[in-house]
This record gives sequence, C-alpha cells and structure tokens, in this order.
Amino acid sequence: MTLDYPTFLVNFKLYAGTAGEEGLDLAETIASVTERTGASLAVAPQTPDLYRIASETDLPVVAQSVDAVNAGRGTGKVALPTVAAAGADGVLVNHPESPQTLSEIESIVESGKDQGVESIVCVDSVETGRAVLAFDPDCLLFEKPADIGTGRSLPRTAPERVEAFVSMVEETNPRTRVLLGGGISSSADVEAALKLGADAAGAASAFVDATDREAWLSEVAETLVSEASADSRR
Amino acid sequence: MTLDYPTFLVNFKLYAGTAGEEGLDLAETIASVTERTGASLAVAPQTPDLYRIASETDLPVVAQSVDAVNAGRGTGKVALPTVAAAGADGVLVNHPESPQTLSEIESIVESGKDQGVESIVCVDSVETGRAVLAFDPDCLLFEKPADIGTGRSLPRTAPERVEAFVSMVEETNPRTRVLLGGGISSSADVEAALKLGADAAGAASAFVDATDREAWLSEVAETLVSEASADSRR
Amino acid sequence: MTLDYPTFLVNFKLYAGTAGEEGLDLAETIASVTERTGASLAVAPQTPDLYRIASETDLPVVAQSVDAVNAGRGTGKVALPTVAAAGADGVLVNHPESPQTLSEIESIVESGKDQGVESIVCVDSVETGRAVLAFDPDCLLFEKPADIGTGRSLPRTAPERVEAFVSMVEETNPRTRVLLGGGISSSADVEAALKLGADAAGAASAFVDATDREAWLSEVAETLVSEASADSRR
Amino acid sequence: MTLDYPTFLVNFKLYAGTAGEEGLDLAETIASVTERTGASLAVAPQTPDLYRIASETDLPVVAQSVDAVNAGRGTGKVALPTVAAAGADGVLVNHPESPQTLSEIESIVESGKDQGVESIVCVDSVETGRAVLAFDPDCLLFEKPADIGTGRSLPRTAPERVEAFVSMVEETNPRTRVLLGGGISSSADVEAALKLGADAAGAASAFVDATDREAWLSEVAETLVSEASADSRR
Repeated sequence: MTLDYPTFLVNFKLYAGTAGEEGLDLAETIASVTERTGASLAVAPQTPDLYRIASETDLPVVAQSVDAVNAGRGTGKVALPTVAAAGADGVLVNHPESPQTLSEIESIVESGKDQGVESIVCVDSVETGRAVLAFDPDCLLFEKPADIGTGRSLPRTAPERVEAFVSMVEETNPRTRVLLGGGISSSADVEAALKLGADAAGAASAFVDATDREAWLSEVAETLVSEASADSRR
Repeated sequence: MTLDYPTFLVNFKLYAGTAGEEGLDLAETIASVTERTGASLAVAPQTPDLYRIASETDLPVVAQSVDAVNAGRGTGKVALPTVAAAGADGVLVNHPESPQTLSEIESIVESGKDQGVESIVCVDSVETGRAVLAFDPDCLLFEKPADIGTGRSLPRTAPERVEAFVSMVEETNPRTRVLLGGGISSSADVEAALKLGADAAGAASAFVDATDREAWLSEVAETLVSEASADSRR
Repeated sequence: MTLDYPTFLVNFKLYAGTAGEEGLDLAETIASVTERTGASLAVAPQTPDLYRIASETDLPVVAQSVDAVNAGRGTGKVALPTVAAAGADGVLVNHPESPQTLSEIESIVESGKDQGVESIVCVDSVETGRAVLAFDPDCLLFEKPADIGTGRSLPRTAPERVEAFVSMVEETNPRTRVLLGGGISSSADVEAALKLGADAAGAASAFVDATDREAWLSEVAETLVSEASADSRR
Repeated sequence: MTLDYPTFLVNFKLYAGTAGEEGLDLAETIASVTERTGASLAVAPQTPDLYRIASETDLPVVAQSVDAVNAGRGTGKVALPTVAAAGADGVLVNHPESPQTLSEIESIVESGKDQGVESIVCVDSVETGRAVLAFDPDCLLFEKPADIGTGRSLPRTAPERVEAFVSMVEETNPRTRVLLGGGISSSADVEAALKLGADAAGAASAFVDATDREAWLSEVAETLVSEASADSRR
C-alpha cells in the first residue's frame, strides 16, 4: 500500500489512550471515517502496536521512527525491514522528538526505497528541507517544533513560509510530497495547508484531545475530499 | 504471566530471519519445544513484533528495550506501558547494545513494578550488579559484552566470577534472579551456569545460527528440566 | 591538588559571561575570596577554558564532564587524562545536563582513581546514591534536577531527605563525601547543608546572577569557614 | 585568523601523546614546519587544550567538535562562542566520531558565521555533501569513514569520486572549500588530492604515528607550497 495524496496523518505519539486495545479502537475510528468519506487517512501508531494496527485495519500505517541499523546485533533497536514486515507503509524520519544524524537520514531514506516504505523526513526550515532533498525522499514533513501541540500552525501564522517551502520543493525535486504539521488543529488549518500547495497535513494532540474525535476527523476528511476534487478539476 | 525459573531466554536481536512471519515461525519452534519438554523458555522478539508473538504463542515475551518516557510526546520512543499492553511479560534494561543512564534504569525498573513487567537489567561486573541492586530489579543479566556472539561463556571460562556474582546477589537482595548470558552456545554452558547458582541463561546467535534450531534448543530445554528437578530435590 | 572539605563549588555551566577572558575574571574573583577568607572554594569552568583557569589561578578546578573513552580515535570527545593534564583536580560525572550510562560512570570513576582526579558523581535520590557507591566514588553530588536554577534547595525544603542521604552514605561508604546542589541560593542554604552533615555545597546560577558576586560568595565563604571551625571543635 | 588555502589539517583526535605538554610540543613541531616552509598548516587539538595551543603558537586552531547549545545550562557541553573565545579559528562539524543531527549541523554552521569561526562539515558522499551545502558551510571535509586510520585514501583509490565531489561543490556553492581526509598517509596523497581540485587535506594517525613527524610533515608542507605556486600560475 502507498499513501494516497492528499492525505492526513494522525500521529499517536506516546499519548495516553493510544496504546494496545485503546490504540486499536482509535485506529478503527479513523478507518471508519475513511470508509464513510473516502478520504485518505493514515496513522502512525506506537511501535509495538505496528503489526496489530496494520493487520487489523485497512489504514496505511506509518512507523514513528526507525534506527539506521543493519541486520545482526542491535538489541532494542528498530529496523526498517522489521517495520515493513509488520505492515508499515511509511516511516517518519528525523522527527524532532527522535532527531537523527545526516548519515542516518540518508541511510533510512535509501533503505525505504529498497523495501518499498515511503520516507517522510521531518524538517523545520527551507534550508533543512533543501538539504534533505539531496537524498530524494518521498515526502518532507515541514513543521516548526515550537508549534507542536499548540493551536498555531504555519499555514495560518506564516502562509508565505509554506509557499516558499512548497516552491523550493517543486523546483528542486517535484516528485517529493510536502506534508504540513505542527499545530494543525482544525479542518480550516488543513484546508489552508492544501490551498498553499501542500500535499498532506498531520496532527497528533488535536485529534487525541478532541472531545469528539470522530466528528473532528470527519470535518478534516471532508476538507480533504473537497480539496482533492477541486484539485482534480484544476 | 511471569517468567518461571529456571528459564532460558532466546533474544532475537535484529538477526536476519527473526522478523515478521519468520520471527513468528521461530517463536513457534520455541513454543513447541516448551510443550514437548515442559521447560520454561522465553523469547525477546524485535519490538514491532511484540504483539504478534505475544498474541499468537503462549511463550513468555520479553521486550528488548524500552525508553524511560512518560505518556505524551516522544514520537518514536518505546514506552513500558505500551509493551505491557502488547503482551510483554518482561523487559531487558541497559543491554550493552542499548545502554541506559542510571536514572533511566531506575525509572524503568520502577515502572516495571507498577505495570507488572519483570525487569531484567544487564550488567557486566560484580560492581555494576551491586549498583543496580539498589533499585531492587527482578533479575540481573550478567554477561561480558566481549563474550557476546562468541563461543566463550563465563560459566566455562571464569566460573569463579559467576560464583562471586551469584553470592553477591544472594547476600544483597536474594529475591533478585541471575541470568547468565554472553557466549552461551550449548546445553553444557547452560548446565554449568545453573550449577554455579544462576537462575537462568540466555542466548541469541547460538540459537539463530544453529543448523538444527529445534534440536539445539531441545538439548538446552532438557538440561533446564533436569537441573530444575535436581534443584527441587536438594 | 585535592578538594579540601568543607568546600563550595561554583559551576559555570554555559552561562553567558563565564567563558574566555570573562571566565578568567570570574575565577579570579573566586580566588580572591579564597585568599581573603581562607575558605575552600572550587570552580567548574567550561571545558575549553580548563587549562587557562587551572594555570592562571590557584583554585581547585573541576571538569564539567568527561566521556568514557580511551586514547585513540574519538574526535570531539573529552578524555579524563586530557582534563587531568590541563589541570583538573576533579570531574563531575553523570550531571543531569550530561547524563551517563552505568558503564560510563563506572569507567570514569575508575579512571579518576588512576589519574588522581576526584570523581564527583551526580545523583538525585537515596537509591541512585546507593547504586553509585558500588563504584567507590570520591564524592556524591546530591540534587533534585527540578530544583536546579530555582531558589528551592533540599536542605531547606526537605531536610529529612538530606539527612537520610547523608546517613546512607555514612553507613555504606564513609570515605565518600556528600556535596549538596540544586537551588542553593544563599549562605543560609550552605549553612543548612553543612549542619545536616553534607561536606560541601555548590551553585551555578545563584553566583552568576548575583548583583554583587564577590559579596554573595564572601558570605558563603564565611559560613564555610565558621562551619569548618565548629566542626573541628566537635 | 582564517584558514589560508591550500592548507593541511592535523587532527590530534584523542591519540596518546597529543594532550597537555605533549600536545603543545607537537603543535610547536607543526608551527616550526610552517615557519620553515611557509606552508599553511592547521591543528585540531583536544578540546581542553584549545586555549593553550591557540595562545602559545601561531597556528590556526580548529575545534574538534562543538555542541549545538545556547548560553545557559548545559553542564559539560562545548559551546561555539567558548571555543571562539579560547582562540579557535574553525570547527569540525559532524565528524563520524561525533556525528550530529541535521538541525545541529545547521545551527553550528550558522553560529560559526556569527562568531567568525570557519565551519568544516564532514560528509561521506556526494549526496551528503550536497545536503550540507544547503547551509552554506565554509568547508566540506570529504572522507570515507572506512578509510580512517588506514593507508587507503580516496584520491588514490577512487580519484573519480573526488572529482565528482569537487565538481558538485563547484557547481552548487563555489565559495565552499573541499578538504580531503580519510587515510591520507603521504605527501603523494596530498598532492593527488590537490591536483584533483581539493583545497585542503588532513590526517591524524599518519602524522601521530610517523617515525619522524617533522620529516613527514615537511614533505607534506613542501607539496602544499609547490601546489599553491603551480595553482597561482594557472
């Protein structure tokens, strides 16, 4: 399975209520919104739950992080081929909560190509985005770490930075997708992100903390669907 | 489920052929030896496979490592409550391939008590063993990192060091178990370890690389059973 | 040179105004208070300034951290023999701002013995203190990381925890000294720490941020001197 | 002071005999070769020796590594402004023995610009080199980690890779210099590197282990001088 853009990624992080049985319930909520709306929604479960969620739902699944390791020793590390075998379709790389070295980023993006796992590399500026494009990643997740978990999102507070980022990517490596994260808290944020040229958006706390998660996600999903159809008419 | 001593722990590390479907097959081999011999065998699968192996076999399952994190952010980290929810009965702490700080060790051992997950803390000397006993861990895994992956094991090359370690643990905190690792490559090593007072032994490459894994493990299992019965007669 | 207890340690951390020429000026202020009062004061300068401050003042100098490395490769690491050659008399180990693994702590304490460098290992509880005593360190720096940089210090907010810590050390390894840190902000804190049985105290921000650093430190120094003489009369 | 190209950088790493008094002696040997030959030679001493070597010799001095930290807490970290105040003219970034995250690299290169410290960022491929050029570093140190400490160097084993690297840099950001490292063991290696378009070369073990260090370095220095004059005639 590959991610089908425009898409919206729900990252469970380590939030309370997102592991085990509860995590599966959440994933099933996301899957039911997908079924009802036709929107492309993906989930990044906690690592020990990857297989469970990949095997028990139809959602595209993204690993929250992998280590740049080879088969062999490495007790406790998480290898890309293992998350692929567990059902991961993509992997977050260099997330600000699990930052990685330049060589690790290069090696994981490459491994992803070999294993058919989409690489979604997190960056926080036009410059770091341009740097990572040297490795031809499948997707760049652009977010300001300071926005994470807040209600401030780049598409609303600094739309010109999003446009600059999108243009840079289009000029440098047009096949790479752009996913907007960091403070995305409503369907209006998602709509703004897509209108500014992003291919995707994502959130963590906004979904997990929503009073009615299904309602919150349904609005996002409808935005995604209507932007996708607007896009195909352009 | 708790580990039932004397026990033998098979650590998959990141060895080729131990992930996904293949990892499940290996675990089923271990489970069939358990059923046939009545020996207590446990497995430490790769982290993304924890749920799969815990839910599809009856083996006690040990997480290879967890991070000392709380619920919340922490994309890519592995939390103890999550591995518990995925079915882990124990967790390796401070493995030389994923070393941890003093505070992390303390915090994970404590969390293990809260969650009912056995803590198996890796140490490489009498002194580091004594240090960790301050946290009242369930088990100390004693191994010389230099022996890992070789055919040299402490019970055979330096039995007096094993005895000194076992005595120190018995004097300091008799409820803590001792698991011998590092170069364990045959049932003779396991027998020597148990006769020297260890409660358990473990291996990784010796099992994974064995020409006939089931035969190799069966011998180990029989040793375990006969030592257990000898022990109960003492 | 060895630290002469009771002593007071000023840690420069990376505070603005503590590097290069400015760092030397600060160290000279500390040295002049030592000369005037006879109190035993020590300094932990930034690593690249170790030689400068050790060679241009008579203060005992403590390295802020070293890596557990051997001679050889290791570009960018800081080796204990190198800080010894630069003039360090002591070294902080496992500071919460540079936490270290169990094996690293063991190895640095041992190296310190070989090189004649006092090991001052940071811990945050009776249990972690007891753990580190297994390595026979010269000194334990006891502080609650949450108190760092605040005006709350253990001797005033939780004197019973300080007493419990001091008793544990005296029973387990009486040669090991106890240094109280974390929120020490006045000579009253220092006095309280020494009266509770600590051999030393330390501060960072309280000194660096004092309006009149020399006056602040002089009060601390006088407390140190009067406690030392009270102690020798006991 | 800035590095004067073509230049040759001697990295002391943590080799035995390169710290304290002995490190100063080595640096004085390098300085005397500079004086005698007019070649531009630089040294990367161990971090605690930075001030000593910068203040007691006329050599350009390069810090082996700094952390991406701000003034404030950070006990044990090494800050760029502090190495600048200690006399460093340049800093190695992302050395394979102290690898750094993408954000750290960006932040240190930027800080270097602010503080007038040349950034020399280590990379191991055309792709990682291209990635780092997004940050406009002063110099890229290109080496294959596997060549470090061996007698195999890229200019001799894979000259076409050096040429490809140099062309990529010239096309992307011509102001960035290229320094060749990794297995450089003779003046012939240095000559080959410069003829292939590199602006500089460097070594560690080859200098430290040379039977007659002054003789070894003098040959390198003469090569540097004759290549510089050939270059200025072109």
